[in-house]
Amino acid sequence: MKFDVISTAGEIKEERLAGRTSIVLDILRATSTIVTALACGCREVAPVETVAEALAILEQRPDVILGGERERLLIPGFHLGNSPLEYMQEKVEGKIVVLTTTNGTRAISRAAAGSGPVLIGSLLNAKAVAREALNTGLDIVLICAGTRGEFSLEDTAAAGIIIKELHNLTKSILPGSDLAVAARRLGEVYAHNPMQALYDSLHGQKLARMGLAADMEWCARLNYYDLVPVCRGGAITVK
Amino acid sequence: MKFDVISTAGEIKEERLAGRTSIVLDILRATSTIVTALACGCREVAPVETVAEALAILEQRPDVILGGERERLLIPGFHLGNSPLEYMQEKVEGKIVVLTTTNGTRAISRAAAGSGPVLIGSLLNAKAVAREALNTGLDIVLICAGTRGEFSLEDTAAAGIIIKELHNLTKSILPGSDLAVAARRLGEVYAHNPMQALYDSLHGQKLARMGLAADMEWCARLNYYDLVPVCRGGAITVK
Repeated sequence: MKFDVISTAGEIKEERLAGRTSIVLDILRATSTIVTALACGCREVAPVETVAEALAILEQRPDVILGGERERLLIPGFHLGNSPLEYMQEKVEGKIVVLTTTNGTRAISRAAAGSGPVLIGSLLNAKAVAREALNTGLDIVLICAGTRGEFSLEDTAAAGIIIKELHNLTKSILPGSDLAVAARRLGEVYAHNPMQALYDSLHGQKLARMGLAADMEWCARLNYYDLVPVCRGGAITVK
Repeated sequence: MKFDVISTAGEIKEERLAGRTSIVLDILRATSTIVTALACGCREVAPVETVAEALAILEQRPDVILGGERERLLIPGFHLGNSPLEYMQEKVEGKIVVLTTTNGTRAISRAAAGSGPVLIGSLLNAKAVAREALNTGLDIVLICAGTRGEFSLEDTAAAGIIIKELHNLTKSILPGSDLAVAARRLGEVYAHNPMQALYDSLHGQKLARMGLAADMEWCARLNYYDLVPVCRGGAITVK
């Protein structure tokens, strides 16, 4: 069994996903938010790529909640931003959340265009998503959303921490590329202190300057949830 | 002052090089070979991208030595391969070497298309190239040649080890991207044992299977030479 890492949404190609299980990672903050929302009783998250798509869904189904960000900020006409702390039980229980973010939802949509299972990963559910990915019996691709098409430290470090969880569960999984080896090494560096990876990243430093350190602390809670969101037919639900 | 990392020759863009000093790295084996040849008295290395270019130069100047590889193997009609151990004094002293390799010479040519100084780096001259790059007073871009357009562990780890040398010389140099931070972390992981980075890389594992472990041991000799090759006007000479 092999594991590989893709470093940005732009590098996702269907042939790299065929017959493999994908784990999509956008630690700051889309996939952390999705995991949190579903853990807090949200019925379904529908990832969409554009603001227009989200608004069109609201017009047809006024009971949905629109969430997301552009340039890290709330989108006009939306109910919620992209902070996981906004997606607590009182806001999302039993609801459908339509989510659009700069990097994360794009990576999910592109991963979903492949033929294999698509799991949503984060530090919050690192161990659970590793276990579930192994259960599929397929090779595993960790897809880092990246930041504006660039390599993202927090996503790659989280991929490495999930690789460490994979190795805790089985010794018979091997890296399929040098980037996979590098991610594993970064996982070893940051596993004892995932928050450091967030603060080492340029995106994390921007969020901290915007007063969003509480979001970062939330996103860095390793294995806080034992839950694996799965994306099927355009909808993300708990397996 | 900032430092940045480019992970493959394909990602080199002129605007990322403008006004900056480049350090080109192809640890296995092109830049290690260039450093070794010049340390052994070679007068000049001329990097070219194609076999045809190299053969055309030989026709005009029968005194040059042709070196390089395709698919890690000697090229028909060439004098030397891509092993640094072939470029010792008795073969190269006073000579011009025309070199073409799959990844390394392409990265050098593309870096040379930019406006800034282009230095040739390796583990063999990590400290020397770090010092020389700082002396230019410009921001620094570490250019990893990569392997067939993919991220290469040994090049990125070497970039990280050179970044560690930069930090030993000055505290006032900051990462310009998350990839630069990741490389720095990998440099910390591998600095005490650069050979491990070579063996962790898929390219290194292939060389080892081809019986080229002695090459790898040579390429992993950290700070063996105090020498900085510079590429100017299509020729690489010692500064």
